[in-house]
Amino acid sequence: MTEQKLSDTQTGPGMDRAAEPAPSGPGGPAGPAVPGPEAIAALRPLGVDQVRLHPEGLLGGWRRRNAEDTLPHCVDNLRGSGNIGNLQAAAGEGEQPFTGMWFADSDVHKTLEAALWELGTSPGDASLEAFVEDTVALLARAQQADGYLNSYFTVAAPEERWRRPDWAHELYCAGHLIQAAVAGGRAGAQPVLLSVARRFADLLVERFGPDGVEEVCGHPEIETALAELYRLTGHRPYLDLARRFLDLRGHGLLGRGRFGPRYHQDHQPVREVREVAGHAVRQLYLLAGMVDVAVETGDLPLLDAAERLWVDAFHTRTYVTGAHGSRHRDEAYGDPYELPPDRAYAETCAAIASFQWNWRLLLATGRARYADEMERAVYNAVAAAVSADGRRFFYSNPLHLRTGHAGSGEEEAARRLPWYSCACCPPNIARLMASLPGYLATADEGGLQVHLYGEATLTAAVAGRPVRLEMRTDYPWQGRVELTVGGEAGQSGPWTLALRVPSWCEAYSVSVGEETVRAPAADGYVRLTRVWTPGTTVVLDLDMPVRQVSAHPRVDAVRGCVTLARGPLVYCLEQADLPPGVVLEDVRLAPAAPITAAHRDDLPGAPVVLSARGVLADAHDPLYTSGASRERTNTPLTLTAVPYFLWGNRTEGPMRVWIPLATTG
Amino acid sequence: MTEQKLSDTQTGPGMDRAAEPAPSGPGGPAGPAVPGPEAIAALRPLGVDQVRLHPEGLLGGWRRRNAEDTLPHCVDNLRGSGNIGNLQAAAGEGEQPFTGMWFADSDVHKTLEAALWELGTSPGDASLEAFVEDTVALLARAQQADGYLNSYFTVAAPEERWRRPDWAHELYCAGHLIQAAVAGGRAGAQPVLLSVARRFADLLVERFGPDGVEEVCGHPEIETALAELYRLTGHRPYLDLARRFLDLRGHGLLGRGRFGPRYHQDHQPVREVREVAGHAVRQLYLLAGMVDVAVETGDLPLLDAAERLWVDAFHTRTYVTGAHGSRHRDEAYGDPYELPPDRAYAETCAAIASFQWNWRLLLATGRARYADEMERAVYNAVAAAVSADGRRFFYSNPLHLRTGHAGSGEEEAARRLPWYSCACCPPNIARLMASLPGYLATADEGGLQVHLYGEATLTAAVAGRPVRLEMRTDYPWQGRVELTVGGEAGQSGPWTLALRVPSWCEAYSVSVGEETVRAPAADGYVRLTRVWTPGTTVVLDLDMPVRQVSAHPRVDAVRGCVTLARGPLVYCLEQADLPPGVVLEDVRLAPAAPITAAHRDDLPGAPVVLSARGVLADAHDPLYTSGASRERTNTPLTLTAVPYFLWGNRTEGPMRVWIPLATTG
Repeated sequence: MTEQKLSDTQTGPGMDRAAEPAPSGPGGPAGPAVPGPEAIAALRPLGVDQVRLHPEGLLGGWRRRNAEDTLPHCVDNLRGSGNIGNLQAAAGEGEQPFTGMWFADSDVHKTLEAALWELGTSPGDASLEAFVEDTVALLARAQQADGYLNSYFTVAAPEERWRRPDWAHELYCAGHLIQAAVAGGRAGAQPVLLSVARRFADLLVERFGPDGVEEVCGHPEIETALAELYRLTGHRPYLDLARRFLDLRGHGLLGRGRFGPRYHQDHQPVREVREVAGHAVRQLYLLAGMVDVAVETGDLPLLDAAERLWVDAFHTRTYVTGAHGSRHRDEAYGDPYELPPDRAYAETCAAIASFQWNWRLLLATGRARYADEMERAVYNAVAAAVSADGRRFFYSNPLHLRTGHAGSGEEEAARRLPWYSCACCPPNIARLMASLPGYLATADEGGLQVHLYGEATLTAAVAGRPVRLEMRTDYPWQGRVELTVGGEAGQSGPWTLALRVPSWCEAYSVSVGEETVRAPAADGYVRLTRVWTPGTTVVLDLDMPVRQVSAHPRVDAVRGCVTLARGPLVYCLEQADLPPGVVLEDVRLAPAAPITAAHRDDLPGAPVVLSARGVLADAHDPLYTSGASRERTNTPLTLTAVPYFLWGNRTEGPMRVWIPLATTG
Repeated sequence: MTEQKLSDTQTGPGMDRAAEPAPSGPGGPAGPAVPGPEAIAALRPLGVDQVRLHPEGLLGGWRRRNAEDTLPHCVDNLRGSGNIGNLQAAAGEGEQPFTGMWFADSDVHKTLEAALWELGTSPGDASLEAFVEDTVALLARAQQADGYLNSYFTVAAPEERWRRPDWAHELYCAGHLIQAAVAGGRAGAQPVLLSVARRFADLLVERFGPDGVEEVCGHPEIETALAELYRLTGHRPYLDLARRFLDLRGHGLLGRGRFGPRYHQDHQPVREVREVAGHAVRQLYLLAGMVDVAVETGDLPLLDAAERLWVDAFHTRTYVTGAHGSRHRDEAYGDPYELPPDRAYAETCAAIASFQWNWRLLLATGRARYADEMERAVYNAVAAAVSADGRRFFYSNPLHLRTGHAGSGEEEAARRLPWYSCACCPPNIARLMASLPGYLATADEGGLQVHLYGEATLTAAVAGRPVRLEMRTDYPWQGRVELTVGGEAGQSGPWTLALRVPSWCEAYSVSVGEETVRAPAADGYVRLTRVWTPGTTVVLDLDMPVRQVSAHPRVDAVRGCVTLARGPLVYCLEQADLPPGVVLEDVRLAPAAPITAAHRDDLPGAPVVLSARGVLADAHDPLYTSGASRERTNTPLTLTAVPYFLWGNRTEGPMRVWIPLATTG
């Protein structure tokens, strides 16, 4: 364990240990702290085994659905789509010609990572355990003698190994293998998998390290993976290589073809770039790696660069659902304020990557704005990507499916599909949902911080004593959260329970026991400091009125529209709730009329829908008319808005998040 | 000449003979009429040699600029970019490895077509004549023994000949070769070129004809080209093959790969399809071919299908500039009313193809709406694609270049580029501009019809007597058009001069000689029937107030915005006319304030600009805020709008056609 580097202090490294490193196995306590002298960190993560999400709640329900439906579905599809067969061929055990995308291995790695997080919180699923055991053994057999592991470049194109850094995704696949091994290391004991990953990582250090070639991968992922592997193992060359990959960007190594350097985030050095650009998922994974390296090396300018890009991304290029990437072409970020709802590419993986990037920034800085964006993404852009049954997925997540939409391609599908030829998104959802417990709360030397609310039980060490927090809430349907302190809370001396007040919340109340307390939020958190008597219940009651949300005036695409929201949830209109024959694009919201939240029994998974007054616009105009538009509205109608994350679970049909306001009567 | 099939009757074939077939050479009279029994045609085209566009006018200035700048520029670039070298290699005369796109020959063919139209109206340019002579001779030498002519599949990939109908563009290139030969046949004598084209066309009939393979080309063009070659030669197998290519569509021959059948307009048979779809240029060329075949074979259901698709395209998917294709991805049509100004792909070639399609429909039906759309396209979408100096071009023609636009790719360029790696657009502009005279007016058995106004002299036979029409106007800057009748007009008996009243015009007056006449427009034309005394001047005075144009309420992307227009011209705001530091997206138009047309000397080529009152919106909001937008506006400012076709000719910078209306004081 001499190389292990763990932390529970404010300055210790703590990035993306969705589970605290848990060398003693799943559910084990966090290890001893050996923070590096230069590391930056405000908050320390809890392990996935320290938080139990109860399935009665929405987040806990998603986690359970992920375990029971999404994960087995992914495993089935890896087998059916040939991903497992590719690795068997690489191991010399089968005759299957290479099948699928050349980066198909990454789907296996991500599913494996998901399975490892899942088993780390809820061991005992024999089928999942068998998948892990078989897959780890297969990876070990498919690994080449020198440590190389990639079925495409072993089976289909061995002569191309390391030859096409722009497109080969070799380091991207290696990164996901390493992330699986890190999950295995934190959420359970997976020495074989860790050994496979380290052998490959050692090969990377040899080839790409200080004495090696100057190349970077066209698709980031390896940067954050190597930093994570360093955290797990303490082996410094991994971190140094991650940093080297970052430093090599912006020097003309990528994007000489039609896609150009911006697509690959290679147009400027990472410390100088001022705008997010290019392929959104690549940009966001790269940013996660930037934060990882920054905090582990104490590189404040690099952290500043990441935060500067955060401001650019979240002030000018993020959808109200938390989705990123407004262009189908190149799956890319657009210009500032270019946020079309209908052609939102909004790739599922980009929302997940944004969640992971914000998590890293939250740990590094403790700033609530990052938790706000995690919440926005997980309840909207990420959640909408999965069907209610957990077995169908969106790749692209538009905010408006137009009447007459003719999308049949995978990237503009009008309905969730069971699998994709480029299946990056489904297993990415699986690994996020499986590790969800790890993102609810953090610790620091002063106490505990709760960032996301849900039915859950947390245990964490505070001043060396095990403290327990029982969270009871119907969040996000209701804003009331009860937290009961337990365990040895009383023996920890005074400590601070910090509760996030989401940025959408304008009024709230706090009581401790029977007593209502004045607790002004500072920097997005209510902080309650005292010697806690076990059994004390804190109630945070967040006002949750229906909100009309407007976009910045420069967002041309939604001028004159509002989004309906309540709590963290964005709502939408669906064709299924409109009278027959009404075209969704003709619906207008009556601006002054009240919008109410209503209980609804007949819509599984959405106990709260919104009810509003609308009118229909006259659609008999020609395409262009002289004279300023004097839109005529007539027929009044009652509108029902349902949570965006649930759209497309009834009949297939048009949907829109941004609703035009009626401009006349 | 027995196979020649010409017409000057109302029912005779007359499609896209921008010049009437002129077997006796440029400037020669229209030939005798041998209309096929089944042909459909309302109007008969004049030859390019029958209309002289004077360079003092805007259209005539464009034609001259095309001759003096664009065409020589294209010729230079064909040489510099390797297109000529490719054909030399195919002729066995050089060592140049194949260079450029695999359909690079089509750029040569289109430039050749442009040169032939140009020489047909204005012979005597020795350099252009040399280009034609050299190129025709080179094409003859590059042609294979069996008639095949395509440098890529001769030089670079002979084993792939006819192997990849989806992507090879072999028939597309053949089509452009044939179009050049047709131009040569109509605008001058080019027997060698016609022979080359016919040898290739005969090979196509042999391979793809009734006894041949069932294949179609992924990129339409051959359909209209073969119909045109039939018109020139009267050789029926060309027309039958064009029809066969149409009939074979929609039966699963194309689009088995990632692009799918819609991209290739192969998802439904052409007579059944109800919406324009897929790659916009391909769709529009196909539609031109549908009209050609319909009118030549008397196929009313096919013509109906084309008109039905016209309604779909022009009522739901056309930009206010006349541009088509709202998606960068796949260069495609979007969903109905999906018309984002910033991400308008609006390929130059699509606007040209739309112009050609509308011309065919105008000739077939005589309906003014088709001339209206020709006018919209030529003055806006097409014209904007060329720089003021005629030597730079847009491929994509957005209606909004955002502040902060980072486009560097050819398809999202922030400024016109001198040439393109896929250089389809510049020579396409050249061939349209060179043939422009042919689109101004038509004839039928009852008289003459003027569709587009400009400084020009027309000569045409009316009742067998040569009639002359002198057109004097400052159109489109002013709405007054003077037409003086001359020639042997008086000997023709009574005939009808039909003058188009554009759909944008709400009031106009007409006088004949000294007399103001009541002349209500019927179906978009004022029709003046009388025995014309030579020297009589008709004045059509079209009111040309500044218009605020609104889009259909379903066009979400421009809600709350108007376009400023005057006459046929769409105007735009450019950064160059804003005070320093003002962000274009913050500019609002004061809705009630008058907008005036003003003379302007300092803007070359735009004597009339528009002046309006604006205000600036407060841009200090976060990206999303709770509460319906209550946009705050403050600083008033004077706005100058310039013709869209002239944008980007001063400094590079943001531009917008759709201007948001201020919603508050």
